[in-house]
Amino acid sequence: QTPVDSVKQSSKIIQPTKTVAKDSSIFNLNVLGRTSLNIGQHKDRHLNAGFRLDETRLLLTGNVHPDLSYKVRFRLNRAFATTTQDNGSRALDFAQVNYRFGKQKEWEVILGKQAAAVGSYEFVNNPVYEYIFTDYVDRILNLFVVGATFSYKVNPNHNFQLQVYNTSTETLDQLIKTAGYAAGDFKQSERPMGAYLTWEGNFLDKAFHTKWSYNYNQLIAGADNHSVSLANMYKVGRTKIYLDLQYSDYGVDHTMLASNPIHSFYGSVGADRVMRKDVVYKSAVLRFDQQFSHHWGISLKGAYETASAAKDKQIGQDFRRNWTGYAALEFKPLVNQDWKLFGGYIDNKISYTNRIGLPTEKNNRFILGTYFNLKAI
Amino acid sequence: QTPVDSVKQSSKIIQPTKTVAKDSSIFNLNVLGRTSLNIGQHKDRHLNAGFRLDETRLLLTGNVHPDLSYKVRFRLNRAFATTTQDNGSRALDFAQVNYRFGKQKEWEVILGKQAAAVGSYEFVNNPVYEYIFTDYVDRILNLFVVGATFSYKVNPNHNFQLQVYNTSTETLDQLIKTAGYAAGDFKQSERPMGAYLTWEGNFLDKAFHTKWSYNYNQLIAGADNHSVSLANMYKVGRTKIYLDLQYSDYGVDHTMLASNPIHSFYGSVGADRVMRKDVVYKSAVLRFDQQFSHHWGISLKGAYETASAAKDKQIGQDFRRNWTGYAALEFKPLVNQDWKLFGGYIDNKISYTNRIGLPTEKNNRFILGTYFNLKAI
Amino acid sequence: QTPVDSVKQSSKIIQPTKTVAKDSSIFNLNVLGRTSLNIGQHKDRHLNAGFRLDETRLLLTGNVHPDLSYKVRFRLNRAFATTTQDNGSRALDFAQVNYRFGKQKEWEVILGKQAAAVGSYEFVNNPVYEYIFTDYVDRILNLFVVGATFSYKVNPNHNFQLQVYNTSTETLDQLIKTAGYAAGDFKQSERPMGAYLTWEGNFLDKAFHTKWSYNYNQLIAGADNHSVSLANMYKVGRTKIYLDLQYSDYGVDHTMLASNPIHSFYGSVGADRVMRKDVVYKSAVLRFDQQFSHHWGISLKGAYETASAAKDKQIGQDFRRNWTGYAALEFKPLVNQDWKLFGGYIDNKISYTNRIGLPTEKNNRFILGTYFNLKAI
Repeated sequence: QTPVDSVKQSSKIIQPTKTVAKDSSIFNLNVLGRTSLNIGQHKDRHLNAGFRLDETRLLLTGNVHPDLSYKVRFRLNRAFATTTQDNGSRALDFAQVNYRFGKQKEWEVILGKQAAAVGSYEFVNNPVYEYIFTDYVDRILNLFVVGATFSYKVNPNHNFQLQVYNTSTETLDQLIKTAGYAAGDFKQSERPMGAYLTWEGNFLDKAFHTKWSYNYNQLIAGADNHSVSLANMYKVGRTKIYLDLQYSDYGVDHTMLASNPIHSFYGSVGADRVMRKDVVYKSAVLRFDQQFSHHWGISLKGAYETASAAKDKQIGQDFRRNWTGYAALEFKPLVNQDWKLFGGYIDNKISYTNRIGLPTEKNNRFILGTYFNLKAI
Repeated sequence: QTPVDSVKQSSKIIQPTKTVAKDSSIFNLNVLGRTSLNIGQHKDRHLNAGFRLDETRLLLTGNVHPDLSYKVRFRLNRAFATTTQDNGSRALDFAQVNYRFGKQKEWEVILGKQAAAVGSYEFVNNPVYEYIFTDYVDRILNLFVVGATFSYKVNPNHNFQLQVYNTSTETLDQLIKTAGYAAGDFKQSERPMGAYLTWEGNFLDKAFHTKWSYNYNQLIAGADNHSVSLANMYKVGRTKIYLDLQYSDYGVDHTMLASNPIHSFYGSVGADRVMRKDVVYKSAVLRFDQQFSHHWGISLKGAYETASAAKDKQIGQDFRRNWTGYAALEFKPLVNQDWKLFGGYIDNKISYTNRIGLPTEKNNRFILGTYFNLKAI
Repeated sequence: QTPVDSVKQSSKIIQPTKTVAKDSSIFNLNVLGRTSLNIGQHKDRHLNAGFRLDETRLLLTGNVHPDLSYKVRFRLNRAFATTTQDNGSRALDFAQVNYRFGKQKEWEVILGKQAAAVGSYEFVNNPVYEYIFTDYVDRILNLFVVGATFSYKVNPNHNFQLQVYNTSTETLDQLIKTAGYAAGDFKQSERPMGAYLTWEGNFLDKAFHTKWSYNYNQLIAGADNHSVSLANMYKVGRTKIYLDLQYSDYGVDHTMLASNPIHSFYGSVGADRVMRKDVVYKSAVLRFDQQFSHHWGISLKGAYETASAAKDKQIGQDFRRNWTGYAALEFKPLVNQDWKLFGGYIDNKISYTNRIGLPTEKNNRFILGTYFNLKAI
């Protein structure tokens, strides 16, 4: 069983005031990690084997006052070098304060670097629990954004959020420099920002959860990006299932995930390599976790994603298709500690429609490893 | 009201031995941050808006013994890559031990990476409290130095310090490589070090404070740099004012702050871009903080700085002028927590004398944001 | 007296279960540092003086359960940028969990980024205690490896370990790119991994300790590397002595320590600069620590290391010779705190056999400084 990240939950969803007051002034430190032995094939290599330190993060949280809490999380295997647009860093996930107010503490404001308020239980989940991410979470979304969130709890089961944030951590200039792209006619917007409108709900005695978001953002002047993300979760006893669906329409594809194979198809080089206009990304992710006993459980995940450039007839609908999935058997040696050993298989295939003619990319591997989310204090 | 950084204070100024003994073996962790929405103009862009994670630092302090304490502070948005001269990193502010000794504990030695003992209340202030720094603090000084400080407390109101330190965190070779400069005839000194002689005083029942320093340092062989920095503070009740004055005479301008516009004026390129000799920097900074109630206060700051190259008649006295200022309204939602919301306006103008003919650079913006200095433990 | 790093020890060597159970759920934070003033000569400079922040690390450890502990250590003056082979970073030393099991808790498994199980008391020692490292520890070994260790305690005095790990933190491609080498015919192995077989023993009422290891690893396809490392320590009362011996035979010298001077000898440039085959490294290190009183002690160390390329007759046996040594007087102001002041002299000489004809490199310096390993919590 892979529960939703409890720390994240606590700051968002229904929580009786009493508990928080009791916990006030408590400092928490979580040590997160995942290490695995990987035996498999990459696009650029035959069978190979090696260890990977998949994850290593430190999470600091605390309530310095019943209504004021903070959250800082950073990775120990990413650069802390300053990012150009938001003055943060790649290593830094969170550096936020949360303040609750109103008669029933039904309002909350979150300020600083924080999680995007996107409808994605794949992202809400603790990163050590996700053996492989979709392109949507890993490469399309700006996951950790600098901005402000205003949250209103209508009743214990429903919550609405407005998040205003920087579209990208890097400037347009830096993004294209890193990607080896040319700017073309594109200039950075004078307000390279975005907003999420998000609804979180609970139904059926909290067995069924939703996190649905609409997003608008702009990075490039004149180019509007829209997306809708619908995350749905069912959780009863030892069973947990989530289904995330999303549709994103990029006026200009500053993620460059779709632009790259389009340039390969056209053979564009040098100044012709510019971000492509009118790209659509779609994703569906289904994950199923079943605990059999205190010690044993399984986790299964499958995701299908496509990229489209329908206005370019030579490229067309769903020209890039990304299949991601895994099956893992999990063993928890100590019942009260969030520490697991796992063995499983990860499969990933990126293919293109026939008219594109690019080769299919297959990545698959057996994994054997451990992950943990330990409460140090 | 923006008090002097209390942690820094505690290790330097008069502190009854009893308190320290009581606190001995206590560990402290402070989480520092500031995030703001900025709407304004830059030199290189028209009106633009965006969020910035201005600051994010972690501070660890503690007394492991009544006389022995340590202080470690690092940023989460700067590179930890090794600096070439002192083997530190840009992200690391402090990594020091403090030891007090003598009959009345009137002596103190500070070893490791530590704050420069410069006479600047702008720098002594907690960085989250300073919306914008002068060029003196931000670009001229080496703020966090590796070295040794010897401090002697004459009486509860007067304290003298001698700090010996590395002039620069990077070698001459690295500095000119980063700046795109040529070395010319300059070679690194065989003792690229400096010293501060500093006096800290309290007067009028601790209403009036001074921190005056004289500095000598050398980075380049044969080039002596001198400076005098006079920081003055008045603090009574809900009012705090500081006035910092400084005069720095660089035998060779290894900061390159003045050298850059001189090269623009002469049109120097390639091997002609070398550090300029005989540059003088002057600064005056005045900041006024007034608390009106437990929740509301204002903060005002103005600074005027000049760069001179008087020995070069074409450049002359005060050829570069930098005006920096802001006005901010501050709101403190919780009386006992160092967490504020603010709104204000920041103005910055860099202009040149007519004979230089370089364009004036105007940066100004409205800010709306939050800062915090939370005691996590 | 410079004791073996107690934290490292505690997780490996004989420890009564009672103690661990008592300590369970305790969080420990150690702040490590060393700063010194160095006055001496480098190969590339005449006499020069300057401060160095030799070391600054944070160590987090704890038992979250009597049988489950974790250890995280990172440096604050190294890059956290992701390493290409193991997805770790240079700054990260440890990110591991330790689990003990079996009837007598005689089994232990260590997973994650961890110390290499190599027979070297120089490396087992806390890094702040070692004024200068041999090339073996500093440049030849991969010290902090991602992998898995299985440990079996035969009885309170004898322990066997098998460690399986990634040979290198960086891929072959990245290593040769950083070094300015060409790949030549070399390709990365499909299993760029290695293993240590290690025996740790105690004799004579724990006065005499051994840590002997055999290592096999591969980074380059078809190139096998073998080494034997024999660490021996005598520790009674105020005296501590260790003697480390090692012999390493590299099928291909991916450390490039020996390859560099061979290319200098041959004048190889561009595509001719490839890793050399059949290189042998040998080292002997002797360190002696004697405490005279609670406050005063001395530390002496001498090491002799050679590199050979015997199959290349022009290069031959022991063509590179590295002498490293120091003598230091140490003062401990507070008896119960691991904080010392020191003064001493470090000598290092790298010479080549006559037939190589490369100039001797002399580095020596006086040191004056401080180191500390403070238990913050």
